[in-house]
Amino acid sequence: MKLSQEEAEDVAKQLNYRHNGLVLAIAQDLNTSQVLMVAFMNEEAVRKSLTTGIMHYWSLERNRLWKKGEQSGNFQYIEEVLVDCDFDALLFKVQQIGGACHHGFFSCFHRKIMGNQFETIEAQVFDPRKVYK
Amino acid sequence: MKLSQEEAEDVAKQLNYRHNGLVLAIAQDLNTSQVLMVAFMNEEAVRKSLTTGIMHYWSLERNRLWKKGEQSGNFQYIEEVLVDCDFDALLFKVQQIGGACHHGFFSCFHRKIMGNQFETIEAQVFDPRKVYK
Repeated sequence: MKLSQEEAEDVAKQLNYRHNGLVLAIAQDLNTSQVLMVAFMNEEAVRKSLTTGIMHYWSLERNRLWKKGEQSGNFQYIEEVLVDCDFDALLFKVQQIGGACHHGFFSCFHRKIMGNQFETIEAQVFDPRKVYK
Repeated sequence: MKLSQEEAEDVAKQLNYRHNGLVLAIAQDLNTSQVLMVAFMNEEAVRKSLTTGIMHYWSLERNRLWKKGEQSGNFQYIEEVLVDCDFDALLFKVQQIGGACHHGFFSCFHRKIMGNQFETIEAQVFDPRKVYK
């Protein structure tokens, strides 16, 4: 799904960037409905995501626009976008290439709480040492 | 799913409350896999959620612990909890009573971006005027 520059600007300016100038962005796998990750977007990341059809976040660590998959090739292609009732969070249904997690898993949510333990419930889908050099 | 006080404290203290002292909390419907909402939790809200099995958030608006459904009765019963690779976000699979959205919808993500429009794609499941008095 791609929007024109004008449409993307229209949408982006109607959101409420109330989390230190950012909105929340959840990526959900279109096919499995698995939640892949949650991160933040500034207005530019929203516009870039909507016009290119590829997820762009605002990286809190690197303090810059972050095209997801720029290093790994594990892009997230946007199929559908939902907005929440507060206009401060977006839900993107995506086609995930490879895996979303930089540790090699399909989802960043690959650990389940069992008692006081965090148990890994997924197998790796790629080897992060080969993908991130 | 409920944890003992000790287990919940163990889990809660291992999370990274890096978003102004909070972690992100996504609620996903266990049966439909629909993402219902995203909000924040402080350490107390994490402990309360895990020990009671009912979602408790930290309300940014009211600046206090918020038991979801306290007014409406639309509680979220926790069935499963996943943690992300950064330990700063939790994914709760829940049984949603009524609907999650205070506007009467099952999910807060009930508007889809179509061009530059936000189109409501769900029917209301309750009348908010009757539920919130």
